[in-house]
Amino acid sequence: MARAIIAGTGALPGLLLKAGPAHLVVFDGVEIKAHGTPVIPARFEQLGRLFTRLREEGIDELCLAGAMTRPQFDPSALDAETMELMPRLMAALAQGDDGLLCSIIALLEDQGFTVRAAHELRPDLVLDEGVLTGIPTDRQQVDAARARAVLEALGPLDVGQGAVAAAGQMLGIETLQGTDAMLNFVARGRTDMGGVFVKRPKPGQDLRVDMPVIGPETVRAVARAGLDGIEVAAGGVLLLDRRAVLAEAETHDVAIWATP
Amino acid sequence: MARAIIAGTGALPGLLLKAGPAHLVVFDGVEIKAHGTPVIPARFEQLGRLFTRLREEGIDELCLAGAMTRPQFDPSALDAETMELMPRLMAALAQGDDGLLCSIIALLEDQGFTVRAAHELRPDLVLDEGVLTGIPTDRQQVDAARARAVLEALGPLDVGQGAVAAAGQMLGIETLQGTDAMLNFVARGRTDMGGVFVKRPKPGQDLRVDMPVIGPETVRAVARAGLDGIEVAAGGVLLLDRRAVLAEAETHDVAIWATP
Repeated sequence: MARAIIAGTGALPGLLLKAGPAHLVVFDGVEIKAHGTPVIPARFEQLGRLFTRLREEGIDELCLAGAMTRPQFDPSALDAETMELMPRLMAALAQGDDGLLCSIIALLEDQGFTVRAAHELRPDLVLDEGVLTGIPTDRQQVDAARARAVLEALGPLDVGQGAVAAAGQMLGIETLQGTDAMLNFVARGRTDMGGVFVKRPKPGQDLRVDMPVIGPETVRAVARAGLDGIEVAAGGVLLLDRRAVLAEAETHDVAIWATP
Repeated sequence: MARAIIAGTGALPGLLLKAGPAHLVVFDGVEIKAHGTPVIPARFEQLGRLFTRLREEGIDELCLAGAMTRPQFDPSALDAETMELMPRLMAALAQGDDGLLCSIIALLEDQGFTVRAAHELRPDLVLDEGVLTGIPTDRQQVDAARARAVLEALGPLDVGQGAVAAAGQMLGIETLQGTDAMLNFVARGRTDMGGVFVKRPKPGQDLRVDMPVIGPETVRAVARAGLDGIEVAAGGVLLLDRRAVLAEAETHDVAIWATP
């Protein structure tokens, strides 16, 4: 068994390398520091070449980690195997994020690779049920329940890993632009304080891709948006850099907790 | 039968005055030009006084029109009747927008007034099923259906009269901040063009309050957001200034249509 991390941007690929030896697969356009880890460069147009290389290295286990933007294909660079896969890839690209990523996993599995989730490699990064820091108030619990209800309603439509509620009102619902953009939107023109950011996988989401994460930057963005709480799904959200998250939460007086 | 328009901001109160003679009820903080219409000034703290005045004028029919911000109460200014209503008003304020407005309607009806919808007074402002301008493409219809599905899922939660989809992806879901803020959010950093803004009443919404409207400014904001279509609910959205809307739609090449 040898492993490769298919690396997107962010801290997660680096954290997964600490789970054991692995190659890093780095697609064109992804910026990442390898820190001495063997790198396999890749292009979306040349998946045939990538699969061959992975097999040469004896790699049978893959883990997708970090954010990746939707690829732009250069048709003139397609290798034969990717050409053959194109109808399937095009159909995948036409779907929502979940649909796209599930198609990619199915494609990798058809090639004989085992696809593992980030939280299987680093179960210690997963937030368990309970309070991580602070003391969630009744008001925060009510706001969190409201945001959670919105995410549950949207889940079947493959929309929304995050939402913000304050004083019983919805202030933000995550769309394609992502969590940072939503929190910036909430921050704009706010004068009152308080409110909760809820982050959860979509109901039924395959956690092997696009597993939600929070990190110190999330806590800072939440504070800038005038919010004072973060609720995540127990077992469904990765915590990047626990120590820094706790420090930021203390600085900004933000409570963080996980519910089922 | 005499009528009063409870005026919020925007063009709607003025349009309703053209439906027949009426008084304007203008609450503290609302800016409106009366153009010679008799005005009854009002404060949220002195509803008793307002009810008395309305009865003195022989007014039995009320119509709420235009945007009103959530009131700040000055407890020291409360009249006796409002004091008595306070528990009910406080409970109403704790609800979502629909809940709040429905409570206010119920309260007015309990006082013996008939509450009428803006589109009952001006049925000519309502968009009927069909195309108002442009030719909606298949791609626009698909985006509109996606945004509509999101609004339908959220309706029971009293969230969302508007949503934006482009190329099958959700780019915006309206929250407390309203349509303008959402369209500004969508506009930010967009490079590709196309997409549809869908505006509908919430499922089951009482159209006597907060009936969705679109006007020339909506078309401009939609164009700034890089979108090229507006779909509204047939019979459920008011069109402010049809001529100006058509002119803006032509200038910016925006299709506008209404579906059931």
